[in-house]
Amino acid sequence: MNAARDKANHRISTLKSLLCVGLDADREKVPAVFSRFSSPVLEFNRSVIRATRDYAAAYKINTAFYEARGIEGFRDMEETLVEIPSECLSIADAKRADIGNTSRMYARAFFEHWEFDSVTVAPYMGYDSLEPFFSYSDKLVFVLCLTSNAGSRDFEEQQLEGGLPLYRRVLERVSQWGAGGNGGVVVGATKSALLADIRNAAPGLFFLIPGVGAQGGSLEEAVDLGVDANREGALVNISRSLIYPPGEFRDIAAYEAAVSMEAERLHSAMRSVL
Amino acid sequence: MNAARDKANHRISTLKSLLCVGLDADREKVPAVFSRFSSPVLEFNRSVIRATRDYAAAYKINTAFYEARGIEGFRDMEETLVEIPSECLSIADAKRADIGNTSRMYARAFFEHWEFDSVTVAPYMGYDSLEPFFSYSDKLVFVLCLTSNAGSRDFEEQQLEGGLPLYRRVLERVSQWGAGGNGGVVVGATKSALLADIRNAAPGLFFLIPGVGAQGGSLEEAVDLGVDANREGALVNISRSLIYPPGEFRDIAAYEAAVSMEAERLHSAMRSVL
Repeated sequence: MNAARDKANHRISTLKSLLCVGLDADREKVPAVFSRFSSPVLEFNRSVIRATRDYAAAYKINTAFYEARGIEGFRDMEETLVEIPSECLSIADAKRADIGNTSRMYARAFFEHWEFDSVTVAPYMGYDSLEPFFSYSDKLVFVLCLTSNAGSRDFEEQQLEGGLPLYRRVLERVSQWGAGGNGGVVVGATKSALLADIRNAAPGLFFLIPGVGAQGGSLEEAVDLGVDANREGALVNISRSLIYPPGEFRDIAAYEAAVSMEAERLHSAMRSVL
Repeated sequence: MNAARDKANHRISTLKSLLCVGLDADREKVPAVFSRFSSPVLEFNRSVIRATRDYAAAYKINTAFYEARGIEGFRDMEETLVEIPSECLSIADAKRADIGNTSRMYARAFFEHWEFDSVTVAPYMGYDSLEPFFSYSDKLVFVLCLTSNAGSRDFEEQQLEGGLPLYRRVLERVSQWGAGGNGGVVVGATKSALLADIRNAAPGLFFLIPGVGAQGGSLEEAVDLGVDANREGALVNISRSLIYPPGEFRDIAAYEAAVSMEAERLHSAMRSVL
């Protein structure tokens, strides 16, 4: 039993949705209708959540967008967290990791201070840099594996002696380290040719799949190839193409209607595959 | 010309010190004499800086220790930054990196919002995840290469096809990406047998060397093997063994005297090698 995993899977299987809404609230992209608020980013996030909550299984907060604005940004993040529906998984997309005593501080920050259900972490420094996150048995830990960007070729896809690429070694290790149920990986949807192989090699891990939408990956393939044997255990993140719909909005209701329509479309597409 | 690099090298060569003081202010380890302040961590940092400023070339803020306490922690970080002497390099030890549009936000956070001189970043996601940091030509970017922890065996030291370990490929790439003068790497002092090789392979990079002190690496070897051909271009970080001297302190002056004595000892040892 793992509270975060169980919550996510329950939501996925009842709603038939893998939709993870990425709250990448860039102050410069927030539509003009939010400008009159003292915290435009917070009001924007509230609107996104209202417009998507019937379709979403999870919400992912990209910490960079908040950190870029310092304390004011972290205040928006803190108040946004309160708005995430309790039946949805909350993910801190933070990609942290450091030596053990420092990773313990990061784990404390995201799991205890901010009370996220899950966090993304970077594998480069190895086991003792991730163990402090894995020591939380009721959380989910998503380790970067094969990412959706061009730079994945530089190191992630490099072949190791013996023939496996680096990301496959990361996958093997996370399968061991997260065997208790809190193990997850980030696998980009832009690499859908590899997604089926990765799922076969790691049937028990939770998958967080970015790269659909602005980055161009196929939604249907991400859903179909990403889920586990129970047709759950995966989330497909959509950020920019959902929260920044094209056009001008005369009021907040019009903005929310546009986001809601796109969320419903994404949910339908996912439901038809699941 | 690179303002951050020039500042660091000027300080290193005039003071004959590579000392980087790690401000890993753990609220639970801050000595009792600071408890009476409304911000014990901030007053502790002020004391550490007062006690070490005649010996230090750089100050490194480990963001995890501040993030663990949320907004209150970031406020301490912000006020600590103001206290770092302008002739010393400020380093955000953040180990960030993400896809390009997100890394741009992190780079903005550390270089523009908080105004650090340099930042540590993680290489796993490759070039486009680091380019937003390298695009700042007056800053220093320290990429994780071979770290001081046991987990470095899991991925960093894995042999790639062709015979080089992963960390050597990172070193090659950073030598290209940071060729304009803002390239740096993190190389642990616990791997001193490899430090000379790494310096030979990357004569132009700036080195940030953790692992001396609490982690057990040799100070003299780190200094002698880490510097470039001009006997500069490297910083040796000391955190816990310097800022948490053993014993109880009857007042702040006694704490500062203990830290100052240790900083002077470290400086002497470095000066005798340089």
